[in-house]
Amino acid sequence: MDVWSVRWADGAVEIIDQTLLPHRVEVRRLADDDSVAEAIASLRVRGAPAIGLTAAFAIAAAAQRAAAAGASREETVAAARRCAERLRPVRPTAVNLAWACDRMTAAVEGAGPDAVAVAERALAEARAIEAEDRAACAAMGRAGAEWLRRRCGDRPLAVLTHCNTGALCTAGIGTAFGVVRTLHEQGRLRHLWVDETRPLLQGARLTAWEAAQLGIPHAVVVDAAAGALMASGQVDAVVVGADRVAANGDVANKIGTYTLAVLAHRHGIPFVVVAPRSSVDARTPTGAAIPVEERPAREVTHCGDTPTAPAESAAANPAFDITPAELVTALVTEDGVSEPR
Amino acid sequence: MDVWSVRWADGAVEIIDQTLLPHRVEVRRLADDDSVAEAIASLRVRGAPAIGLTAAFAIAAAAQRAAAAGASREETVAAARRCAERLRPVRPTAVNLAWACDRMTAAVEGAGPDAVAVAERALAEARAIEAEDRAACAAMGRAGAEWLRRRCGDRPLAVLTHCNTGALCTAGIGTAFGVVRTLHEQGRLRHLWVDETRPLLQGARLTAWEAAQLGIPHAVVVDAAAGALMASGQVDAVVVGADRVAANGDVANKIGTYTLAVLAHRHGIPFVVVAPRSSVDARTPTGAAIPVEERPAREVTHCGDTPTAPAESAAANPAFDITPAELVTALVTEDGVSEPR
Repeated sequence: MDVWSVRWADGAVEIIDQTLLPHRVEVRRLADDDSVAEAIASLRVRGAPAIGLTAAFAIAAAAQRAAAAGASREETVAAARRCAERLRPVRPTAVNLAWACDRMTAAVEGAGPDAVAVAERALAEARAIEAEDRAACAAMGRAGAEWLRRRCGDRPLAVLTHCNTGALCTAGIGTAFGVVRTLHEQGRLRHLWVDETRPLLQGARLTAWEAAQLGIPHAVVVDAAAGALMASGQVDAVVVGADRVAANGDVANKIGTYTLAVLAHRHGIPFVVVAPRSSVDARTPTGAAIPVEERPAREVTHCGDTPTAPAESAAANPAFDITPAELVTALVTEDGVSEPR
Repeated sequence: MDVWSVRWADGAVEIIDQTLLPHRVEVRRLADDDSVAEAIASLRVRGAPAIGLTAAFAIAAAAQRAAAAGASREETVAAARRCAERLRPVRPTAVNLAWACDRMTAAVEGAGPDAVAVAERALAEARAIEAEDRAACAAMGRAGAEWLRRRCGDRPLAVLTHCNTGALCTAGIGTAFGVVRTLHEQGRLRHLWVDETRPLLQGARLTAWEAAQLGIPHAVVVDAAAGALMASGQVDAVVVGADRVAANGDVANKIGTYTLAVLAHRHGIPFVVVAPRSSVDARTPTGAAIPVEERPAREVTHCGDTPTAPAESAAANPAFDITPAELVTALVTEDGVSEPR
């Protein structure tokens, strides 16, 4: 089936509700700003590029609703701005959300003379973000696969990945998963190790599902198995996404990424980060300046709705960690590949 | 409440069924060899010392049943030997199981002239294993806490641990958890980070439960969070158990242990392995010779009974990994502390 994350549908945002995957594929229509905020906060839609695009469509929808209700130009711009301010703080780590809000706000502010022009400009900007992201995914896929050919040769590779970075979190084939998919299409993927990615299991639930849809040979492993797999020579490359890349090349990504980077470094395995330019934030000097979202303890003390820890036990739930640039072998964007170390 | 793993009760083995913890505390009576094998295989009782002790009591029970049924001395010895051979291969990684089977077999073979003497000797040997393990736990607790005082000073420590190594898997206060408990009793434990320990969540379900029973300040984290905790200075020491220690000091322990050792090494944090002498196997030259149990894929693709991955996805489930001696800062046994590196 066709895998996608977010789309524009008749004046509103539609998403595949990722909290129900892989067991149910349900499209959800988000009719107002609050529904969009809830969907982003509860990870019904997630992944740095996808939440940026969701915000962009939501802002376009807010402008379109205002214009349709007969609002003035200024009121329409204000509705778009309100939506942006509502969504911007919902998830702090990925820079794409703030980036999309800024870009959409600038677009509507610079739009034509009336409400309809503002609404049209907003949708055009969101569509541009969507098209750029799709093209960026394709470019990253090619660039990452080509870099791996130069680094590892033509033999089919065993790749380990973390979290979900595919079509479910971008407008295209994905970031890290786009590289994996490109390798697969080139006959150069021997095996994909899918970290289950606790607590919310985006690897087991989402990446494994995308891999299954595409016929990519894969196996799910617990996050803690990566060390044993690398030590026994079963991993040729680690390929992950990023929620934010700081100016110095430090990378914020799903909790556990830093551990993979440390392990890959020890074993001389290339550690490849794949992220669109929109995830690179020149205004964040280093990883230390990236805010790391602390999510609810319940995600750790439960698996789905089933409690896994005693009711009296506390839990900590940092959703991301910071990988220093020195551990990143290659950073792949749509502009090409840089080698920080 | 009183926390224990396995006990002798009127001629049979009783365990707390650990698969039901922390939500239900249920004592299970294991009336024959097959029930014991099933309980060990399905991790109703688990942890290297506890499965050794379970086998010892089971062998004593087998001998006692034979003697009570009027078997000859030789038939009683044969019943004990049959039980040992039935249990020995059930879990291959921890050496304590084979060690207890060997020790019990030698004891019954060297026992007195009749069936009753054999049965009595078997129970006495199992009781000795139990008493020795309890004493070993206490000694390890003291030795580990003292070593940490020399290494880290008197300040209260934040300790990270993995899997379950407490009263639920020994006859005493535990191995690594015994050190934690001793620190706590000495007022030197600031905080315990409990790795949830996927796939079977022995940390979240069992260690957190033991910590809660004892009032030890703790928080559960996903296994993938260890790197971020260490990088942010929130871990003073990593303290783990072992299922087998090879002659050269390499350590087999729950999957994820190797990763913790690599991270601790990077951050200059002491990595302490705590295991009784019975887990040290002079006949295993290095970690490469330790068989690593591959457990059912279903443990990874499910959380309890709930599927977490697509039905068509494969999974790999190595239950243990090998930590090379060079990454072990201190090995604590009841004989004292050695520093491999």
